[in-house]
Amino acid sequence: MNSYLPPGFRFNPTDQELINCYLTKKVTASLPSDWKIIADIDLYKFNPWDLPGKAFFGEGEWFFFSPQKRKYPNGVWPNRAAGLGYWKATGTHKPILSTDGSNCIGVKKALVFYKGRPLKGIKTEWVMHEYRLLD
Amino acid sequence: MNSYLPPGFRFNPTDQELINCYLTKKVTASLPSDWKIIADIDLYKFNPWDLPGKAFFGEGEWFFFSPQKRKYPNGVWPNRAAGLGYWKATGTHKPILSTDGSNCIGVKKALVFYKGRPLKGIKTEWVMHEYRLLD
Repeated sequence: MNSYLPPGFRFNPTDQELINCYLTKKVTASLPSDWKIIADIDLYKFNPWDLPGKAFFGEGEWFFFSPQKRKYPNGVWPNRAAGLGYWKATGTHKPILSTDGSNCIGVKKALVFYKGRPLKGIKTEWVMHEYRLLD
Repeated sequence: MNSYLPPGFRFNPTDQELINCYLTKKVTASLPSDWKIIADIDLYKFNPWDLPGKAFFGEGEWFFFSPQKRKYPNGVWPNRAAGLGYWKATGTHKPILSTDGSNCIGVKKALVFYKGRPLKGIKTEWVMHEYRLLD
Protein backbone atom coordinates (compact mmCIF):
# COMPACT_ATOMS: atom_id res chain seq x y z
CA MET A 1 0.00 0.00 0.00
CA ASN A 2 3.04 2.26 0.29
CA SER A 3 2.98 4.98 -2.34
CA TYR A 4 5.79 5.83 -4.68
CA LEU A 5 8.18 8.68 -3.95
CA PRO A 6 11.48 9.34 -5.73
CA PRO A 7 14.51 8.30 -3.65
CA GLY A 8 15.36 10.64 -0.80
CA PHE A 9 11.86 11.99 -0.27
CA ARG A 10 10.24 11.29 3.08
CA PHE A 11 7.04 12.14 4.86
CA ASN A 12 8.45 13.81 7.91
CA PRO A 13 5.85 16.34 9.07
CA THR A 14 6.29 18.74 11.97
CA ASP A 15 3.75 18.78 14.80
CA GLN A 16 2.40 22.03 13.41
CA GLU A 17 1.96 20.56 9.92
CA LEU A 18 0.14 17.55 11.34
CA ILE A 19 -2.28 19.80 13.22
CA ASN A 20 -2.76 22.60 10.69
CA CYS A 21 -2.39 20.85 7.35
CA TYR A 22 -3.83 17.44 8.15
CA LEU A 23 -5.87 17.00 11.36
CA THR A 24 -7.73 20.32 11.25
CA LYS A 25 -8.52 19.82 7.58
CA LYS A 26 -9.60 16.25 8.17
CA VAL A 27 -12.01 17.34 10.89
CA THR A 28 -13.42 20.17 8.77
CA ALA A 29 -13.62 17.87 5.72
CA SER A 30 -11.38 20.23 3.72
CA LEU A 31 -8.59 17.75 3.07
CA PRO A 32 -8.39 17.00 -0.68
CA SER A 33 -10.03 13.60 -1.07
CA ASP A 34 -7.39 12.48 -3.59
CA TRP A 35 -4.52 12.97 -1.13
CA LYS A 36 -3.43 9.45 -0.27
CA ILE A 37 -1.02 10.57 2.42
CA ILE A 38 -2.43 9.70 5.85
CA ALA A 39 -4.56 6.56 5.86
CA ASP A 40 -7.92 6.49 7.60
CA ILE A 41 -8.23 3.39 9.76
CA ASP A 42 -9.75 2.13 12.99
CA LEU A 43 -6.45 1.92 14.82
CA TYR A 44 -7.85 0.09 17.83
CA LYS A 45 -8.80 -2.89 15.71
CA PHE A 46 -5.16 -3.80 15.13
CA ASN A 47 -1.94 -4.80 16.77
CA PRO A 48 0.75 -2.16 16.25
CA TRP A 49 2.87 -4.49 14.12
CA ASP A 50 0.00 -4.76 11.63
CA LEU A 51 -0.12 -1.00 11.16
CA PRO A 52 2.96 -0.23 9.00
CA GLY A 53 1.47 -2.19 6.12
CA LYS A 54 -1.64 -0.01 6.25
CA ALA A 55 0.19 3.30 5.93
CA PHE A 56 0.76 5.15 2.66
CA PHE A 57 4.18 6.44 3.75
CA GLY A 58 6.64 5.93 6.53
CA GLU A 59 9.91 4.40 7.59
CA GLY A 60 9.99 3.59 11.29
CA GLU A 61 7.12 6.03 11.78
CA TRP A 62 3.63 5.81 10.30
CA PHE A 63 0.68 8.16 10.36
CA PHE A 64 -3.03 7.45 10.62
CA PHE A 65 -6.32 9.16 11.17
CA SER A 66 -8.38 7.14 13.62
CA PRO A 67 -11.59 7.70 15.54
CA GLN A 68 -11.22 7.56 19.29
CA LYS A 69 -13.26 4.90 21.07
CA ARG A 70 -15.06 5.60 24.31
CA LYS A 71 -15.18 3.10 27.14
CA TYR A 72 -18.77 4.08 27.95
CA PRO A 73 -21.20 5.54 25.39
CA ASN A 74 -21.66 8.89 27.14
CA GLY A 75 -18.35 9.07 28.96
CA VAL A 76 -15.10 10.75 28.04
CA TRP A 77 -12.85 7.89 29.16
CA PRO A 78 -11.12 6.53 26.06
CA ASN A 79 -11.09 2.82 25.29
CA ARG A 80 -7.49 1.92 24.52
CA ALA A 81 -7.91 -1.83 23.98
CA ALA A 82 -6.35 -2.84 20.65
CA GLY A 83 -5.62 -6.22 19.10
CA LEU A 84 -3.96 -8.51 21.60
CA GLY A 85 -3.40 -5.77 24.17
CA TYR A 86 -3.91 -2.09 24.92
CA TRP A 87 -2.30 1.32 24.61
CA LYS A 88 -1.36 3.03 27.84
CA ALA A 89 -0.66 6.75 28.16
CA THR A 90 2.81 7.65 29.36
CA GLY A 91 4.05 11.05 30.46
CA THR A 92 2.01 14.19 30.15
CA HIS A 93 0.12 15.94 27.39
CA LYS A 94 2.46 18.14 25.42
CA PRO A 95 0.93 21.34 24.04
CA ILE A 96 1.62 22.02 20.37
CA LEU A 97 2.21 25.72 19.83
CA SER A 98 1.70 27.59 16.59
CA THR A 99 4.92 28.25 14.66
CA ASP A 100 5.17 31.77 16.10
CA GLY A 101 4.61 30.38 19.59
CA SER A 102 1.62 32.61 20.23
CA ASN A 103 -1.10 30.03 20.82
CA CYS A 104 -1.75 26.37 21.49
CA ILE A 105 -3.14 24.59 18.43
CA GLY A 106 -3.25 21.03 19.71
CA VAL A 107 -2.08 18.43 22.18
CA LYS A 108 0.28 15.48 21.75
CA LYS A 109 0.27 12.47 24.01
CA ALA A 110 2.58 9.43 24.05
CA LEU A 111 1.21 5.92 24.55
CA VAL A 112 2.94 2.55 24.85
CA PHE A 113 1.49 -0.76 23.70
CA TYR A 114 1.14 -3.54 26.28
CA LYS A 115 0.42 -7.11 25.25
CA GLY A 116 -2.22 -8.87 27.33
CA ARG A 117 -4.88 -7.65 29.72
CA PRO A 118 -4.74 -4.36 31.63
CA LEU A 119 -2.69 -4.41 34.86
CA LYS A 120 -1.00 -7.63 33.76
CA GLY A 121 0.10 -6.52 30.30
CA ILE A 122 3.68 -6.82 29.09
CA LYS A 123 5.21 -3.60 27.86
CA THR A 124 6.36 -3.57 24.22
CA GLU A 125 8.57 -1.18 22.27
CA TRP A 126 5.66 0.16 20.22
CA VAL A 127 4.99 3.83 20.88
CA MET A 128 2.14 5.94 19.54
CA HIS A 129 1.90 9.71 19.52
CA GLU A 130 -1.68 10.84 19.62
CA TYR A 131 -2.44 14.29 18.22
CA ARG A 132 -5.65 16.00 19.24
CA LEU A 133 -7.18 19.34 18.41
CA LEU A 134 -7.87 21.52 21.39
CA ASP A 135 -11.67 21.63 21.41
CA MET B 1 12.11 27.64 -8.45
CA ASN B 2 11.13 25.47 -5.49
CA SER B 3 8.84 22.65 -6.55
CA TYR B 4 5.56 21.77 -4.96
CA LEU B 5 5.29 19.00 -2.36
CA PRO B 6 2.30 18.35 -0.10
CA PRO B 7 2.87 19.54 3.49
CA GLY B 8 5.16 17.34 5.55
CA PHE B 9 7.15 15.91 2.64
CA ARG B 10 10.84 16.70 2.56
CA PHE B 11 13.82 15.83 0.43
CA ASN B 12 16.04 14.32 3.06
CA PRO B 13 18.24 11.76 1.28
CA THR B 14 20.74 9.48 2.99
CA ASP B 15 24.38 9.51 1.87
CA GLN B 16 23.76 6.16 0.17
CA GLU B 17 20.76 7.50 -1.74
CA LEU B 18 22.75 10.52 -2.90
CA ILE B 19 25.52 8.29 -4.22
CA ASN B 20 23.49 5.38 -5.64
CA CYS B 21 20.27 7.02 -6.77
CA TYR B 22 21.54 10.42 -7.85
CA LEU B 23 25.28 10.94 -8.35
CA THR B 24 26.05 7.58 -9.97
CA LYS B 25 23.05 7.94 -12.25
CA LYS B 26 23.96 11.52 -13.11
CA VAL B 27 27.47 10.46 -14.10
CA THR B 28 26.21 7.54 -16.18
CA ALA B 29 23.48 9.71 -17.72
CA SER B 30 20.78 7.35 -16.45
CA LEU B 31 18.95 9.85 -14.29
CA PRO B 32 15.45 10.47 -15.73
CA SER B 33 15.71 13.82 -17.48
CA ASP B 34 12.29 14.89 -16.21
CA TRP B 35 13.29 14.55 -12.55
CA LYS B 36 13.55 18.11 -11.32
CA ILE B 37 14.99 17.14 -7.95
CA ILE B 38 18.67 18.13 -7.82
CA ALA B 39 19.51 21.21 -9.86
CA ASP B 40 22.49 21.27 -12.16
CA ILE B 41 24.51 24.45 -11.62
CA ASP B 42 28.03 25.79 -11.67
CA LEU B 43 28.28 26.15 -7.92
CA TYR B 44 31.56 28.04 -7.99
CA LYS B 45 29.96 30.93 -9.84
CA PHE B 46 27.88 31.88 -6.82
CA ASN B 47 27.99 33.02 -3.25
CA PRO B 48 26.44 30.42 -0.95
CA TRP B 49 23.55 32.70 0.00
CA ASP B 50 22.52 32.83 -3.67
CA LEU B 51 22.23 29.04 -3.86
CA PRO B 52 19.00 28.26 -1.95
CA GLY B 53 16.96 30.09 -4.59
CA LYS B 54 18.46 27.85 -7.28
CA ALA B 55 17.47 24.57 -5.64
CA PHE B 56 14.33 22.60 -6.43
CA PHE B 57 13.88 21.43 -2.85
CA GLY B 58 15.35 22.11 0.55
CA GLU B 59 14.89 23.76 3.91
CA GLY B 60 18.18 24.70 5.52
CA GLU B 61 19.90 22.21 3.20
CA TRP B 62 20.03 22.29 -0.58
CA PHE B 63 21.40 19.88 -3.15
CA PHE B 64 23.18 20.52 -6.43
CA PHE B 65 25.13 18.77 -9.11
CA SER B 66 28.16 20.83 -10.01
CA PRO B 67 31.29 20.28 -12.09
CA GLN B 68 34.52 20.57 -10.17
CA LYS B 69 36.89 23.29 -11.33
CA ARG B 70 40.63 22.68 -11.59
CA LYS B 71 43.17 25.28 -10.59
CA TYR B 72 45.45 24.31 -13.47
CA PRO B 73 44.20 22.69 -16.69
CA ASN B 74 46.06 19.41 -16.26
CA GLY B 75 46.32 19.34 -12.47
CA VAL B 76 44.16 17.68 -9.89
CA TRP B 77 44.15 20.61 -7.48
CA PRO B 78 40.58 21.88 -7.26
CA ASN B 79 39.75 25.55 -7.66
CA ARG B 80 37.50 26.48 -4.77
CA ALA B 81 37.10 30.19 -5.50
CA ALA B 82 33.40 31.11 -5.54
CA GLY B 83 31.61 34.45 -5.65
CA LEU B 84 33.10 36.86 -3.14
CA GLY B 85 35.27 34.24 -1.47
CA TYR B 86 36.26 30.59 -1.49
CA TRP B 87 35.37 27.18 -0.05
CA LYS B 88 37.95 25.61 2.22
CA ALA B 89 38.02 21.93 3.13
CA THR B 90 37.67 21.15 6.81
CA GLY B 91 38.21 17.82 8.54
CA THR B 92 38.87 14.62 6.68
CA HIS B 93 37.22 12.73 3.84
CA LYS B 94 34.50 10.50 5.20
CA PRO B 95 33.98 7.23 3.35
CA ILE B 96 30.38 6.42 2.43
CA LEU B 97 29.74 2.73 2.87
CA SER B 98 27.07 0.73 1.09
CA THR B 99 23.98 0.05 3.22
CA ASP B 100 25.26 -3.40 4.18
CA GLY B 101 28.64 -1.89 5.11
CA SER B 102 30.53 -4.16 2.75
CA ASN B 103 32.15 -1.61 0.45
CA CYS B 104 32.94 2.05 0.03
CA ILE B 105 30.72 3.67 -2.61
CA GLY B 106 31.85 7.28 -2.30
CA VAL B 107 33.50 10.00 -0.28
CA LYS B 108 32.04 12.97 1.57
CA LYS B 109 34.01 16.07 2.40
CA ALA B 110 33.00 19.16 4.41
CA LEU B 111 33.95 22.66 3.27
CA VAL B 112 33.40 26.07 4.83
CA PHE B 113 32.90 29.30 2.93
CA TYR B 114 35.30 32.17 3.61
CA LYS B 115 34.60 35.70 2.42
CA GLY B 116 37.55 37.48 0.84
CA ARG B 117 40.88 36.31 -0.49
CA PRO B 118 42.63 33.09 0.55
CA LEU B 119 44.68 33.31 3.78
CA LYS B 120 42.88 36.53 4.73
CA GLY B 121 39.32 35.32 4.29
CA ILE B 122 36.69 35.63 7.01
CA LYS B 123 35.00 32.39 7.97
CA THR B 124 31.23 32.24 7.47
CA GLU B 125 28.60 29.81 8.72
CA TRP B 126 28.01 28.35 5.26
CA VAL B 127 28.97 24.69 5.06
CA MET B 128 29.03 22.48 1.98
CA HIS B 129 29.20 18.70 1.89
CA GLU B 130 30.83 17.49 -1.29
CA TYR B 131 29.98 13.97 -2.44
CA ARG B 132 32.30 12.24 -4.87
CA LEU B 133 32.28 8.83 -6.47
CA LEU B 134 35.33 6.73 -5.76
CA ASP B 135 36.98 6.57 -9.16
